[in-house]
Amino acid sequence: MYVCVFSGGAAITRKHELECVDEEKLSITCRQLRQSMSLNCSLPVSMDWSRDIEAPNPPEPLDLQGKNVDTERFIIVHGAGSFGHFQASRSNVHKGGLETALGKAGFVATRISVTRLNHIIVRALASEGIPAVGVSPFCAGWSTRSRALEQHNVSMVKEILDSKLIPVLHGDAVFDSTQGCTILSGDVVLRKLAQDLKPLHAVFLTDVPGVYDRPPSDKDAVLLEEIEVHRDGSWIITRPGSLSLKTGVETEAAAHDTTGGMATKISEAAIIAMSGVDVFIVEAGTPHALEAFRSSSRYELSNAWIGTIVRAVS
Amino acid sequence: MYVCVFSGGAAITRKHELECVDEEKLSITCRQLRQSMSLNCSLPVSMDWSRDIEAPNPPEPLDLQGKNVDTERFIIVHGAGSFGHFQASRSNVHKGGLETALGKAGFVATRISVTRLNHIIVRALASEGIPAVGVSPFCAGWSTRSRALEQHNVSMVKEILDSKLIPVLHGDAVFDSTQGCTILSGDVVLRKLAQDLKPLHAVFLTDVPGVYDRPPSDKDAVLLEEIEVHRDGSWIITRPGSLSLKTGVETEAAAHDTTGGMATKISEAAIIAMSGVDVFIVEAGTPHALEAFRSSSRYELSNAWIGTIVRAVS
Repeated sequence: MYVCVFSGGAAITRKHELECVDEEKLSITCRQLRQSMSLNCSLPVSMDWSRDIEAPNPPEPLDLQGKNVDTERFIIVHGAGSFGHFQASRSNVHKGGLETALGKAGFVATRISVTRLNHIIVRALASEGIPAVGVSPFCAGWSTRSRALEQHNVSMVKEILDSKLIPVLHGDAVFDSTQGCTILSGDVVLRKLAQDLKPLHAVFLTDVPGVYDRPPSDKDAVLLEEIEVHRDGSWIITRPGSLSLKTGVETEAAAHDTTGGMATKISEAAIIAMSGVDVFIVEAGTPHALEAFRSSSRYELSNAWIGTIVRAVS
Repeated sequence: MYVCVFSGGAAITRKHELECVDEEKLSITCRQLRQSMSLNCSLPVSMDWSRDIEAPNPPEPLDLQGKNVDTERFIIVHGAGSFGHFQASRSNVHKGGLETALGKAGFVATRISVTRLNHIIVRALASEGIPAVGVSPFCAGWSTRSRALEQHNVSMVKEILDSKLIPVLHGDAVFDSTQGCTILSGDVVLRKLAQDLKPLHAVFLTDVPGVYDRPPSDKDAVLLEEIEVHRDGSWIITRPGSLSLKTGVETEAAAHDTTGGMATKISEAAIIAMSGVDVFIVEAGTPHALEAFRSSSRYELSNAWIGTIVRAVS
């Protein structure tokens, strides 16, 4: 039993500020994830025993003795947000060029930045008592061919889940067999994991309440409540009814977002939905995010839930 | 053409101080590595474009355009030193127990600590213009069976070298197919890489001038200049001649060093030497370390060189 959680970079970083985590959003999200796992110890016992953590650190081994952490199985994948995108776009890592000094430098700088964010997120999860284990797709052998996924390593993720640990993957700079290197976005990693592992559902965390029919900054923007995806990959808006004839949405993407913005998110969600896995797109740090984590199907979501459901045609 | 460099934890961290890097040693070592690679740009252009780096950061793409970084192929593996060992020994990660909360917490805490050190080292190398790429053995699928190496991923390292990038691996907490998990020491990772990739030689960096016949803190300690390893794995001291009858050495290991101290280092070096790869054990940050990096065989070492050579019987 799995739930895949994709945290878009925008949800947990300050997207327009270089390498800046939204500490509050991250902290609430980690707490909500913990609340959604069946952890049988009442208070979190930190699994981050680093030097710079405030006392009590580390817990006495006795505090943990016998208190097994029985988790629902979650898979976490995060984007880069303001980590990595800047470095990647400055050197066009997504276009390759690993044989040049600039390409190498961009590849190295991008990996430093994205693994740094991964480290921050793993530590935040661990400090909530979640047994989080960082997995860089690059190290695990994920690679592309002409920018499309060629090699993956779902079995490694499966093995981590089988050990009742929580894998935390991320968008990464990876090798590409035709152009040397590229960016493998977190969305694509999550899609592959969802297709192969068939989780109950996938939750996409973002920084707005869901998907809108136009940029959410527009005052007339309408939240799309449900998107139905057909077998051929086309999709229609089924709720609200007033929008049901629209077949496209305008979207907004930060200029340095090399892996695309909301448009990519909808198409990735649609592909996941086509494999029979419902996708809930929801604002990070809200009660709606917690509800999305906890629900085992879309039928469990309350009427008060705010977000976008992307599902296959029934 | 490869040179394997193993930086023992003691060489670059303050071993008795939790998670403390010896900044000066690390910085000198990175500079020496750069000097030992055929880099054709006169000044290092940093490949670490993180937010907290001092200006000029990042370099203008123009600074790097056309300046290819043509490196000799180095493989870097580092130990944990004061990163990871504490967490690992507190929870006995090397003995398994991943099914308990304490075991999980220890595994998570250890991985957080060792990947943090890896991140620091990769950034230090990148800031010297070395195209360093961190590879966690755990993520790359290295695992053990009854604490002995079972699965490795040398091909990933080979692929990184073929892209003229410098892989930086480390001692890690990994899965073990009989006991759940254990610690895979950096020595063992380096041994496997040396056996399979047949580098010119391997350099072991440490915090003393080489291997002594007794704890180096003892004023009568004598530096072993050359150790000869026989086909059956036994070894003798060939230089200095006065010690040639000794077949063992007393060693000192910090209490929290779960992967053993100098004794482990000699046996690992002996195994590497048996596969035909000379091992130079040398003090990090000294001119002797630079000489060790630059020499393509033991015959190139000057008479003034101070360190221990471990080699197979000729």
